[in-house]
Amino acid sequence: MSKEKPSIPKGTRDFGPAVVVKRNYIFSIIRRTFEKFGYLPLETPAMEQLSVLTGKYGDEGDQLIFKILNSGDYLGKTTPADIEQGSKHLIRKISEKALRYDLTVPFARFVVMNRNEITFPFKRYQIQPVWRADRPQKGRYREFYQCDADVVGTNSLLCEAEIVQMIDEVLTTLGLTDFTIKINHRGVLAGIAEAIGEKGREGDICVAIDKLDKIGKEGVRKELLERGISEDAVSKLEPLYTLEGDNQDLLQQLQTILGNTEEGQRGLKDLNDVWTYLDNLGSNALTATNPSGNPRLQLDVTLARGLSYYTGCIFEVKVNNVNMGSISGGGRYDNLTGMFGLPGVSGVGFSFGVDRIYDVLEELDLFPVSAQLSTKVLIVQFDKESELYALPLLQKLRDAGISSELYPEAAKLKKQMSYADQKNIPFVLLVGSEEMASGKLKLRDMQTGEQDELYIDDIIAQLKDIA
Amino acid sequence: MSKEKPSIPKGTRDFGPAVVVKRNYIFSIIRRTFEKFGYLPLETPAMEQLSVLTGKYGDEGDQLIFKILNSGDYLGKTTPADIEQGSKHLIRKISEKALRYDLTVPFARFVVMNRNEITFPFKRYQIQPVWRADRPQKGRYREFYQCDADVVGTNSLLCEAEIVQMIDEVLTTLGLTDFTIKINHRGVLAGIAEAIGEKGREGDICVAIDKLDKIGKEGVRKELLERGISEDAVSKLEPLYTLEGDNQDLLQQLQTILGNTEEGQRGLKDLNDVWTYLDNLGSNALTATNPSGNPRLQLDVTLARGLSYYTGCIFEVKVNNVNMGSISGGGRYDNLTGMFGLPGVSGVGFSFGVDRIYDVLEELDLFPVSAQLSTKVLIVQFDKESELYALPLLQKLRDAGISSELYPEAAKLKKQMSYADQKNIPFVLLVGSEEMASGKLKLRDMQTGEQDELYIDDIIAQLKDIA
Repeated sequence: MSKEKPSIPKGTRDFGPAVVVKRNYIFSIIRRTFEKFGYLPLETPAMEQLSVLTGKYGDEGDQLIFKILNSGDYLGKTTPADIEQGSKHLIRKISEKALRYDLTVPFARFVVMNRNEITFPFKRYQIQPVWRADRPQKGRYREFYQCDADVVGTNSLLCEAEIVQMIDEVLTTLGLTDFTIKINHRGVLAGIAEAIGEKGREGDICVAIDKLDKIGKEGVRKELLERGISEDAVSKLEPLYTLEGDNQDLLQQLQTILGNTEEGQRGLKDLNDVWTYLDNLGSNALTATNPSGNPRLQLDVTLARGLSYYTGCIFEVKVNNVNMGSISGGGRYDNLTGMFGLPGVSGVGFSFGVDRIYDVLEELDLFPVSAQLSTKVLIVQFDKESELYALPLLQKLRDAGISSELYPEAAKLKKQMSYADQKNIPFVLLVGSEEMASGKLKLRDMQTGEQDELYIDDIIAQLKDIA
Repeated sequence: MSKEKPSIPKGTRDFGPAVVVKRNYIFSIIRRTFEKFGYLPLETPAMEQLSVLTGKYGDEGDQLIFKILNSGDYLGKTTPADIEQGSKHLIRKISEKALRYDLTVPFARFVVMNRNEITFPFKRYQIQPVWRADRPQKGRYREFYQCDADVVGTNSLLCEAEIVQMIDEVLTTLGLTDFTIKINHRGVLAGIAEAIGEKGREGDICVAIDKLDKIGKEGVRKELLERGISEDAVSKLEPLYTLEGDNQDLLQQLQTILGNTEEGQRGLKDLNDVWTYLDNLGSNALTATNPSGNPRLQLDVTLARGLSYYTGCIFEVKVNNVNMGSISGGGRYDNLTGMFGLPGVSGVGFSFGVDRIYDVLEELDLFPVSAQLSTKVLIVQFDKESELYALPLLQKLRDAGISSELYPEAAKLKKQMSYADQKNIPFVLLVGSEEMASGKLKLRDMQTGEQDELYIDDIIAQLKDIA
């Protein structure tokens, strides 16, 4: 047995109780919201067939997939020639399984395998870890949770509207008040490319525009020219960076600009439909404004987001005044399962970045007290007699649904108080000889230091009230 | 891109929505109970250093650990000699990480790594999947959840008593009424061996006795003799198989039998202490009886359970009249972290077998309706007009916290009804022209087929009541 100091793999994390409780608070709000909108949970295995994953994430992605060594004599079926051909060739001979790299491919695989049993439209959410052999760095891990919701088998733009609502509901429930849900449409981007005389070049245009925040207008101009977009087109494009007005104004301006392009028309019609749905739903996302006065939902023609995959509306969410990338994003696609030979499965999906949301809530101090504790009261014992006296009290507290503990030994008071303190237990109940005689117990509020003398029934009533 | 029919690895499972919802029902009851007793959640990475896992589960266990191939040019650091030495030797050269095999070793690793920050007694629970390269068969999977709770850093037998209570609370809350929590003590087993003149032979004795149910008294006698236990000792042992009486009787009979053995005394004292705790807690486990009239908590001197690891009380739980192995078990150990060179960390823990509990609840039809559905009401739409009319209703339902959906298209009524049916949605709301005119909506109970005509506010009140 190794006696060396144990460690965990680079890029992975242990989550101690304080952190798990806070993460679960985020997960539970996301879950509850997904379910309120009719999305149901799906769970797929951590391991997928390597053949299911290979070729779905590009060459670089393939290399970042964690492969699992076949069990037993994995070299048994290899030849010296296999080994001579090197690591990359040998993988297929010694590894048949791999760790899930995202939740989209397993979802597509599930839909294909169960297409005859699934009732469409199929609304599923999935909250599970994924693994990537990326170089670990600040904020980038080799194991992290993804949190996806997708609906496949319908083209209704009600789904897009409901995604906006779910994002708004989750973030609002988490206490965020200053965030922007950016929306755009692949058709709008294609229409812009056509309108400026570069039909079909929206890919290059978007890659460049996407950097506007970082490299500025001049930088984007340079990159666009390098990518072969004409001077004339770039000049026509630039006014779009700074379109002004509220969303309805923007939609009308775009109508003028894109009026003659088929793709542009498609995009504008979809966006208008999303707005109509949200309007009829009385959605907060339309009526609420950020502290800056801007609407929460904002049409942003410079939003690009993974063009190769998406075909309709695209979304991205930024928390304002916090130094953090997008915390949510998604969009519509029209071919989820083509990679497995099943065409025609279209849908729309989005995901939350829970690690980033966690960091934002920490930074803004938005975790409520209730998400930071579990045990509500610790009974301190002084000797065998007080332990015996405390046992039925403990039971009464628990019967009332109050998470409670009796310190399991008659340790020094200081040690027991420090236990409560470290575990963030808000109340301590002291059972000494005086208390046993009178039945009035000392309830100490660990935050204020205040002490009340109360009968157990009153204590229960008080603690239940605090929830 | 491969167009072959995708599949999942042998021994793994997809959990579709209906199953996840039911599994989550079990997990949530377990979680809530753990937390009520002051246990807090811990989560460790799926991947551990291979060196952390190797040597902890015996030779056979080592082979069942799923190893992860190093990323990049994993062969780069190997020599031809490494490869010649075969699969087993090569593993250490091409794999540094492996998938978690259980939750105990990662817990021990966590305690060692964080021993200076942890406040003891440390009560943690952990509900996460583990992976084993076992040959898959009915009821045995390569990926399955474990569900452990442990407290380390105290010898108090209150912990044992609370484990009995937690088991009782979880199973009772799940609706089980006929189960037996068997309890025994390693000291009792050692005392028995000593009392029959075979001191130190409790290992062999237990392996044999453990088979009593399967091979009967004669079979056990044969095995004991084969294992070198004397005729005389076996004859002295046999009356113990059929000790009769309630728990207090049993404890007294054992007192007579084990009175002179040190280990036996230790075991009996601990068991008596556990009973005293449970008595003072007014625990159901003591007062409740099964339909057969037997007490729920039962001292069973033939209970053996992993002797090499446990040192004090041991537990095992059987659901009666169901053909299923134990659904929960555990015990006290006095050296959790010795494998990592940190001695003296003792504790007691137990776990629930969620797959088995799931099967039992299915067999006994104990999943409540509330654990079998998520969306509570589907609004059916007939045309654009009824869709627009339905949108604010949908919002009202959701604002009231009622999970609800509007079918996203004006599909045929039959299709929409079948969607509700397949998704197990209990109520359907029909919004046709008549309903729009009167404001009274048709609410159809999908189970009974009954239809009421109600205003939306009454519908909300009714659906909220049903919870």
